[in-house]
Amino acid sequence: MDYYKESLKMHEENKGKMAVVSKVKVGTKDDLSTAYTPGVAEPCRKIHQNPEDVYKYTNKSNVVAVVSDGSAVLGLGNIGGAASIPVMDGKSLLFKEFAGIDAFPVCLETQDVDEIVNIVKNIAPTLGGINLEDISAPRCFEIEERLQAQVDIPVFHDDQHGTAVVVSAAVINAAKLTCRSLKEMTAVINGAGAAGTAIAKMLMNLGIKDIIACDSKGILTRNRGDLNEAKRRLAAITNEGQVSGSLGDAIRGRDLFIGVSAARVLTQDMVRTMNKDAIIFAMANPEPEILPDLAREAGAAVIGTGRSDFPNQINNVLIFPGLFKGALAARAKRITEEMKTAAAFALAGIIKDDELRADYIIPSAFYPGAADIVAAAVEKAWHQ
Amino acid sequence: MDYYKESLKMHEENKGKMAVVSKVKVGTKDDLSTAYTPGVAEPCRKIHQNPEDVYKYTNKSNVVAVVSDGSAVLGLGNIGGAASIPVMDGKSLLFKEFAGIDAFPVCLETQDVDEIVNIVKNIAPTLGGINLEDISAPRCFEIEERLQAQVDIPVFHDDQHGTAVVVSAAVINAAKLTCRSLKEMTAVINGAGAAGTAIAKMLMNLGIKDIIACDSKGILTRNRGDLNEAKRRLAAITNEGQVSGSLGDAIRGRDLFIGVSAARVLTQDMVRTMNKDAIIFAMANPEPEILPDLAREAGAAVIGTGRSDFPNQINNVLIFPGLFKGALAARAKRITEEMKTAAAFALAGIIKDDELRADYIIPSAFYPGAADIVAAAVEKAWHQ
Repeated sequence: MDYYKESLKMHEENKGKMAVVSKVKVGTKDDLSTAYTPGVAEPCRKIHQNPEDVYKYTNKSNVVAVVSDGSAVLGLGNIGGAASIPVMDGKSLLFKEFAGIDAFPVCLETQDVDEIVNIVKNIAPTLGGINLEDISAPRCFEIEERLQAQVDIPVFHDDQHGTAVVVSAAVINAAKLTCRSLKEMTAVINGAGAAGTAIAKMLMNLGIKDIIACDSKGILTRNRGDLNEAKRRLAAITNEGQVSGSLGDAIRGRDLFIGVSAARVLTQDMVRTMNKDAIIFAMANPEPEILPDLAREAGAAVIGTGRSDFPNQINNVLIFPGLFKGALAARAKRITEEMKTAAAFALAGIIKDDELRADYIIPSAFYPGAADIVAAAVEKAWHQ
Repeated sequence: MDYYKESLKMHEENKGKMAVVSKVKVGTKDDLSTAYTPGVAEPCRKIHQNPEDVYKYTNKSNVVAVVSDGSAVLGLGNIGGAASIPVMDGKSLLFKEFAGIDAFPVCLETQDVDEIVNIVKNIAPTLGGINLEDISAPRCFEIEERLQAQVDIPVFHDDQHGTAVVVSAAVINAAKLTCRSLKEMTAVINGAGAAGTAIAKMLMNLGIKDIIACDSKGILTRNRGDLNEAKRRLAAITNEGQVSGSLGDAIRGRDLFIGVSAARVLTQDMVRTMNKDAIIFAMANPEPEILPDLAREAGAAVIGTGRSDFPNQINNVLIFPGLFKGALAARAKRITEEMKTAAAFALAGIIKDDELRADYIIPSAFYPGAADIVAAAVEKAWHQ
């Protein structure tokens, strides 16, 4: 199937993928007077008197804006806000289809950090949550942090945290399958951008202590002079032994490889230097860091990618719909570490111990009810 | 019917009035690969290569944002963005129900003019049009003007222009019914805010030369020292004879009274000083400047209000859905005077000459196909 061609056709025929519809009818003068003036003044008055009533009389608790400045869209790079609309519209579609959330794209003309924070903060009154998407690192860190400090609804950069949570679920099950404890596991993360950084932090929260991070120039160390602020921070919390060198040096004798980098950077020779029953999550898109067959041949025990045509697709769609659904239900003011951890364990737990296999450590994107299972765990975690 | 009570109930039961829905299904991996990655990269690339393709592959041509800062909401005053949501949601509902437009509320946290212009400009990539709503004067003039200068989609402040166009349609038919030519008609407009100013300008464009505008302190003259910039501009283009005095002084010997002011400011004695077959459009809400019965008793020939429980309801819903529909179809870059004039004549023309009566000079809000009739005229006017 030629997805590019099919996608163009789908987008042209449907004029995008989302529509806005009415939940009430306006067929009579009474309808008009109830839905609009004069009746509508009354819910306005109530909200004015008690700001929390916005959750009672509007759709706020079910609305998520998918916000992007188009600075790092898929593998396409910095194509700008307008050209990113089909992706954000697609993300909105997944929110709706997988979790019933009313999501819509907000694709920005500006790429200025101050402006983005100010814009999104100021359009927040109608929103229950904010999903940041495809914003380049390190700008995405600052935008998320500053925005969350100024609004009392969850701000979630899916490229960072959605990826980190779904990878964590895969790691949890792969560790179980290969009889490892998370505490003793050793990991290398290749890719020190938004996703790599978030994965490193989350794996540490799960108990994995020995993590080395690499960028395209090799291992991140505290005395590398070519690191930006975000990478310096990552270097400061990883690589305890201060090993230096290449990815090849980093991976030797490790249990787990996580790639959020580029096609074909992981060789079979590298995999052969890893520990027995190595776990490889090669998530570069569309072509992974190593093809599953090659990794298996070189001795890897568990292999996952970002692709739907291989087993163990590590796909954010397993997380963000349910995570937001739970956060919205809890009326959470932010997404906490506990909520993300709960989401990872809930997703991992969908596969029972006796169902776990090397080619089934993560449920399919279409696993029925996955979003509700994740949502329930997330909602509970907020309240605890 | 207690509209306030009914409205609260409607809003609570439905959680607002609008939802976002999918236009495509995501039931299989192929669906996911077509609607989202990897397929979605292709429409993104196309739009990146040719910005006009955003109209081909997204919903831009049918999306309108209903933007408010909540500074002048209905008769409630400055209640802020969050409390204004039910109104903007209601406006979105009318866009959908009357013209099939995908509209959604953008209710702002800020009331700073610079910020509002910057925010709306920067969220414009997904939008086909911008409806400004319930923004206080004179800020609304500056916001509309500056915003329109920076985006290439229509910006329309409905409180100004929607009101002006629907009033113009009523004036056209009332003039016809009372056998007056627009050129010879004399008018007084009571209310020198956003609506009053827009009405004055539009009536002048229709050919009415002799207009006096009043605010709550009386007639606007060029040498009144208490006028803000917007009122000074209005004073400069009205009241050619530089009459000064009260509303009572202004109305004497005039054909047409248009009220966008406050309840009960027009007395029967004032109406009695007007010309024979006077026309009175008393649109203060919820209570008009004069009740229709009293106006009729004092000799008025044609009377309209903003209320649905009296004949001749002069309601913006007759204009803005069709006007936007036509502008979107034309892919107009702004709303021109010609488009507004065309909309007024198209709406007026719905009532045939032999159907015109004193209590039927404007169609009902539910007149079937009114929006399409207006839209066709507006689209044609842009292309001429």
